[in-house]
Amino acid sequence: MNDVIETILNHRSIRSFVDEPLCSEQIKTIVRAAQMASTSSYIQAYTIIGVKNKTTKATLAELAGNQPYVEKNGHFFLFCADLHRHEVSGKIENVNVSKSLESTEKLLVSIVDASLAAQNATLAAESMGLGICYIGGIRNNIDKVAELLKLPSYVIPLFGLAVGVPEKDTEQKPRLPFDNIYHEEEYLQDETTYINHLDEYNKTVSAYYERRTKGKRSDRWTEQMADMLKEAKRTHMKTFLQNKGFMRD
Amino acid sequence: MNDVIETILNHRSIRSFVDEPLCSEQIKTIVRAAQMASTSSYIQAYTIIGVKNKTTKATLAELAGNQPYVEKNGHFFLFCADLHRHEVSGKIENVNVSKSLESTEKLLVSIVDASLAAQNATLAAESMGLGICYIGGIRNNIDKVAELLKLPSYVIPLFGLAVGVPEKDTEQKPRLPFDNIYHEEEYLQDETTYINHLDEYNKTVSAYYERRTKGKRSDRWTEQMADMLKEAKRTHMKTFLQNKGFMRD
Repeated sequence: MNDVIETILNHRSIRSFVDEPLCSEQIKTIVRAAQMASTSSYIQAYTIIGVKNKTTKATLAELAGNQPYVEKNGHFFLFCADLHRHEVSGKIENVNVSKSLESTEKLLVSIVDASLAAQNATLAAESMGLGICYIGGIRNNIDKVAELLKLPSYVIPLFGLAVGVPEKDTEQKPRLPFDNIYHEEEYLQDETTYINHLDEYNKTVSAYYERRTKGKRSDRWTEQMADMLKEAKRTHMKTFLQNKGFMRD
Repeated sequence: MNDVIETILNHRSIRSFVDEPLCSEQIKTIVRAAQMASTSSYIQAYTIIGVKNKTTKATLAELAGNQPYVEKNGHFFLFCADLHRHEVSGKIENVNVSKSLESTEKLLVSIVDASLAAQNATLAAESMGLGICYIGGIRNNIDKVAELLKLPSYVIPLFGLAVGVPEKDTEQKPRLPFDNIYHEEEYLQDETTYINHLDEYNKTVSAYYERRTKGKRSDRWTEQMADMLKEAKRTHMKTFLQNKGFMRD
């Protein structure tokens, strides 16, 4: 196994950081790594906002659902899907690009672009001994986050990335069975096998929680998922995206 | 610089592969690496389909816009955003999860999840000396790709990943200026600076094309973008997504 694969397989989300800010060299390396990810037709449809200011971080933590590690970390990166640069490019070149920017296809493109960049940032950070946690919670109050960080039209905050020196190590959560994630030649058609995978996984996940909580929890994965999905959350998303210019068509 | 950062910074898309299939160990390592990416609330909302069958690959290449490297590579992975597993979880647990699965928020979650996994797969492959190319072209005929690979409801093909032993090395394309991608504390408010970044970048990109094509091309980046975006493409996307159960709310 090489160092890259070792770093990838060793990933765990870190939710407790030492009070030690990243230096500017570390930030530069992380952002440059992010930039080298593949991008759809060279579009580079994302922007990263780095937040150091303590008041801003505290506000973000509150908006994200009072997660302390949004406030207390070495650096907070906000990853945005961004087509504003392309709106400006249209103006510079005197070409109307709005129909294209407003297409659902371009929403997909910008989310994929931002995410590929973020995962590069993650691995660069982890390779330097730092820990990370993705913060989807910023979408709880996505309009307020956008306002706080002054995002223009065609820019949406997708997720945060809290980075810092890990204070506490955490355990890895077991992933879905290989054969349930990876299908050959076509989507797995045999429903019995598919359900068996989930049953098998439920046992693995239950055993994990039992061990970790010394018997206090033994959730099945399907139970966790059904519970999480019984109510739609962040139902403001479509309106927010459309207000920002996305997904109108 | 460590090996991880070196691998990340050395990335270039490879569009010509040696006729040598990946072995099953390589495929396993790549998929296991993908699985270790972060996932929103443990949802793991993606599936990877591995395609070896030559006829299927040839059809995919045609559907993706006749890109030869979709057919000729060491292995073809299709990354899908997938909430079907969660639909099944709802059935197992006797909980109605459809409102949640149909929310735009869950479209975002599944695209981000699939993309983070894909970038791990990419870096694992590159660390083993393989080359990769993301294939957004499969979205040209997304309904036919979904039909070909028998994707059920709540599953959408997002992009392919062609992987193999590189036949020809390629050059890296210069990325946007650091200060244009990375903003501090808030989105860059100074429009003059912002435009200056793009002007500066246009010069870099023009020089790159001039050098690479021995003077035959000298596109500016804003020109390329405006040209690409003057017409909306893949305008079938919203209907396709909604037919698959996504983004109805």
